[in-house]
Amino acid sequence: MNNHILLVDCPDREGLVYRVTGVLYRNSCNIISNGEFVDRDSKHFFMRTEFSGDIDRSAILAELKKDLGDDAAIKLAEKKKKNIVILASKEHHCPGDLILRQKYGELKADIRAVISNHDVLRDLADKFDIPFHHIPHDNLNRDEHETMVMGAIDDHSPDYIVLAKYMRILTGRFVSAYANRMINIHHSFLPAFIGANPYQRAYDRGVKIIGATAHFVTENLDEGPIIAQDVITISHTHGVEDMIQAGRDVEKVVLARALRLALEDRIFVNRNKTIIFD
Amino acid sequence: MNNHILLVDCPDREGLVYRVTGVLYRNSCNIISNGEFVDRDSKHFFMRTEFSGDIDRSAILAELKKDLGDDAAIKLAEKKKKNIVILASKEHHCPGDLILRQKYGELKADIRAVISNHDVLRDLADKFDIPFHHIPHDNLNRDEHETMVMGAIDDHSPDYIVLAKYMRILTGRFVSAYANRMINIHHSFLPAFIGANPYQRAYDRGVKIIGATAHFVTENLDEGPIIAQDVITISHTHGVEDMIQAGRDVEKVVLARALRLALEDRIFVNRNKTIIFD
Amino acid sequence: MNNHILLVDCPDREGLVYRVTGVLYRNSCNIISNGEFVDRDSKHFFMRTEFSGDIDRSAILAELKKDLGDDAAIKLAEKKKKNIVILASKEHHCPGDLILRQKYGELKADIRAVISNHDVLRDLADKFDIPFHHIPHDNLNRDEHETMVMGAIDDHSPDYIVLAKYMRILTGRFVSAYANRMINIHHSFLPAFIGANPYQRAYDRGVKIIGATAHFVTENLDEGPIIAQDVITISHTHGVEDMIQAGRDVEKVVLARALRLALEDRIFVNRNKTIIFD
Amino acid sequence: MNNHILLVDCPDREGLVYRVTGVLYRNSCNIISNGEFVDRDSKHFFMRTEFSGDIDRSAILAELKKDLGDDAAIKLAEKKKKNIVILASKEHHCPGDLILRQKYGELKADIRAVISNHDVLRDLADKFDIPFHHIPHDNLNRDEHETMVMGAIDDHSPDYIVLAKYMRILTGRFVSAYANRMINIHHSFLPAFIGANPYQRAYDRGVKIIGATAHFVTENLDEGPIIAQDVITISHTHGVEDMIQAGRDVEKVVLARALRLALEDRIFVNRNKTIIFD
Repeated sequence: MNNHILLVDCPDREGLVYRVTGVLYRNSCNIISNGEFVDRDSKHFFMRTEFSGDIDRSAILAELKKDLGDDAAIKLAEKKKKNIVILASKEHHCPGDLILRQKYGELKADIRAVISNHDVLRDLADKFDIPFHHIPHDNLNRDEHETMVMGAIDDHSPDYIVLAKYMRILTGRFVSAYANRMINIHHSFLPAFIGANPYQRAYDRGVKIIGATAHFVTENLDEGPIIAQDVITISHTHGVEDMIQAGRDVEKVVLARALRLALEDRIFVNRNKTIIFD
Repeated sequence: MNNHILLVDCPDREGLVYRVTGVLYRNSCNIISNGEFVDRDSKHFFMRTEFSGDIDRSAILAELKKDLGDDAAIKLAEKKKKNIVILASKEHHCPGDLILRQKYGELKADIRAVISNHDVLRDLADKFDIPFHHIPHDNLNRDEHETMVMGAIDDHSPDYIVLAKYMRILTGRFVSAYANRMINIHHSFLPAFIGANPYQRAYDRGVKIIGATAHFVTENLDEGPIIAQDVITISHTHGVEDMIQAGRDVEKVVLARALRLALEDRIFVNRNKTIIFD
Repeated sequence: MNNHILLVDCPDREGLVYRVTGVLYRNSCNIISNGEFVDRDSKHFFMRTEFSGDIDRSAILAELKKDLGDDAAIKLAEKKKKNIVILASKEHHCPGDLILRQKYGELKADIRAVISNHDVLRDLADKFDIPFHHIPHDNLNRDEHETMVMGAIDDHSPDYIVLAKYMRILTGRFVSAYANRMINIHHSFLPAFIGANPYQRAYDRGVKIIGATAHFVTENLDEGPIIAQDVITISHTHGVEDMIQAGRDVEKVVLARALRLALEDRIFVNRNKTIIFD
Repeated sequence: MNNHILLVDCPDREGLVYRVTGVLYRNSCNIISNGEFVDRDSKHFFMRTEFSGDIDRSAILAELKKDLGDDAAIKLAEKKKKNIVILASKEHHCPGDLILRQKYGELKADIRAVISNHDVLRDLADKFDIPFHHIPHDNLNRDEHETMVMGAIDDHSPDYIVLAKYMRILTGRFVSAYANRMINIHHSFLPAFIGANPYQRAYDRGVKIIGATAHFVTENLDEGPIIAQDVITISHTHGVEDMIQAGRDVEKVVLARALRLALEDRIFVNRNKTIIFD
């Protein structure tokens, strides 16, 4: 028997859990775990169900559609490995961490490619037999460069695109092509230090805590739905370089945590926020 | 319309969520939040549902009983303030914190009494018009003393008994009289430093982290089901007194957090562990 | 023999530690702990020394002045209780926590008064025999009100003024009167959510972590030197009220931690940052 | 001008900081940072000084020896890369993390070799051109095996030996050969869950926090001086495998943090504890 994940969201009304679980019950499925949430502001209902059963996918989807109505968004995913593409620039720690996790089976994904505007990480990708695409941005305008990057991404049909310290500003065209499928790691506890050089600015401000934020990418830089955040304490003895070094460990762990949530279909995007069933 | 909390646990089988939500649906109740968990080891099912509706309690309970079978434990609680009794010795920070929370409406409980084997905290209880019972243990054997304490507790019919640094070892008779209703705060991150003088032993061991643990009290000292834990970092500059001081803030916050979970009916005890829907 | 705390800061140059410890050595003082830091940006030297000895304060100060030169800021404090005044509005948790700490000897300070623009906390202050000054701002312009508050503060000659959720914007006149002596608790991990309603904005932004920041008050709201910060994790299930409730525990603990550092003369203000020897 | 690190410890007495800094001052050295600590229990003094200067090492050491007396332990280290050897078994995450850090210059050490009782990690070491020694323990008694491992270690003259999940019990002979130079990562927040299978036992106990501890190895398993610890929160939804997975991120980060402290000569071992100047 296979395991499946069902994601349902729709305007809230009475009996939703009853209806969804009824469909599963009548199809002899066994619920492994179940999470629901109703957003009080938008009166919207979210439900994630993990269940096992030998199912006829299209039959179940049709039945759910009929029972829940046309305004319900329904997604039925098989519990299996997904494909990802990593976009990186020069920094190694996030791509390196993900590559090691994949090699040893810790990552529920295949890294189909690393794409970078610099050639720095080719050596690392090569060692682990991961295709590396160097797409320099010299002599290209932003649109031309993005078109090439998008081509390289699309060749691999990834479920998710991971921006592992990809230090390029993205156009709306690029962002909307991968809506809710592109995860970025930002090196601050957003919304503090939106934009460039967060560690320098954290140093200048004299904060006692620094952090990292993984979020879906939207048109507004660093303002997309937050998936995961974490922090570490620092002191006046930390120079900017010390913060950057200390921050790397938070960045890579937070990115991996957010990616796991995405790969396990645990995230709903609710306007500019996430709802996470973990 | 009132809010209600339904707690169900029973051996796992197909259709449980469907059955429970069906009863609520047929009684025109609206689910506010829902949590389920199946313990893979014991194949036991746990479900907490918060719902609103004008209900006939006994009718719903009967219907649930019928649908779920005799092996289901079903509890239907109204969402309202509970009563607690605090047992304390000489330390003020946990009782004081709870008393302030009650005064300003932060605690979903009425503190019906503070009972202590010392007279130290009478002054504090008096200030906030909370009955204070001083039950010294001098010239009494353990059973005699406990009988007096139990009498004082039972006069107030509390939902929960909070051991807010009550530094007395309890007999099995006492513990079993308040099974799953007595919450203790232990001044270490259990199971490290079970027993007496945890800060001294943390100091001697040279740990870099200290903590606190709130747990239900069982016959085996410091081995009951853990509800909440938290920690803080320390360094070699902390003497034992510094640890005690730093630890107080963790203790009082962890105890309040655990108590909130109990007062909101968010905890199942699953053998020696807790399942918490928060 | 009494314990003393020596704070020295001056432009960095060779031999500073040697000179300072030389003066102490020649005066038969015994160093208990010692911390130094050189800010690489400003090339400025900071040193805090705790020592014991029967000293002639003015002789030691003169000797240090002679040895270190005119550009050295030297402060010699006795290790003893200081006086504080609390400014509050309606919220109880920070003032209440400080009052309990004082009552039980946890706070190295005497709370000389609670001053508030509302009458809400009078009852609490009265219970603990702490003078309460209600200075309403109705029918007063900002300057008039502040003049009255400053008068009430100055009557008690406090070492530090603690803004324990005092929800009033302060003028430059007020701020500069108590430079580096006024500690505020802000209910966010600054610089995130500067200004009003940080929990509402944290909710709207969908952060996964909230926090609190204690800082010295300067003319620019929420931009003064940060003394202490801490955070707690939240999730999509937290509404604004839940965040406010959860945040209170962080706020009161962070404020108490920052105040302890100030009361123990552990903080240097270095332009817009703090250097803390703990 | 080179940077140097001076470590001094001796029984506490008046004038120690003055004497040490006097020697440095007379040799035209400039102190960059300075930390001192006196252990109140043992009345022992510890001092770490980072300074710059063109020095005659033996002259300074002789001068310090003369000024401080025969009971002073004095170590003068140049601030430079050290050599380490990694001992591992089958788990990849700690060795992999250290190898990536080295490759990209984050680790202030050269990994001279990876030694393992299994052949699993050869592939990883090979990719990064790090010598890999497979020393199986089949058909060998413990002493024979250790003799071979010690031979392999000693061939590389490492400053530190890192036990990166090396799952073998060590004899006293082995341990004493590398006293205060061998760092182990244990997969629990010691002293909780000393010994084997800490995650299984954490699961059985129902803790809400798990952690990792890096410590110097001594004869008593898991009882050596603790260098660094960290934790993460878990819940009832975490099975043992989930804990193991979540724990890996804490383990690798805590080990790297402890190793950095050792490589920068920031650790004193004080009987069974560490004193850390960071």
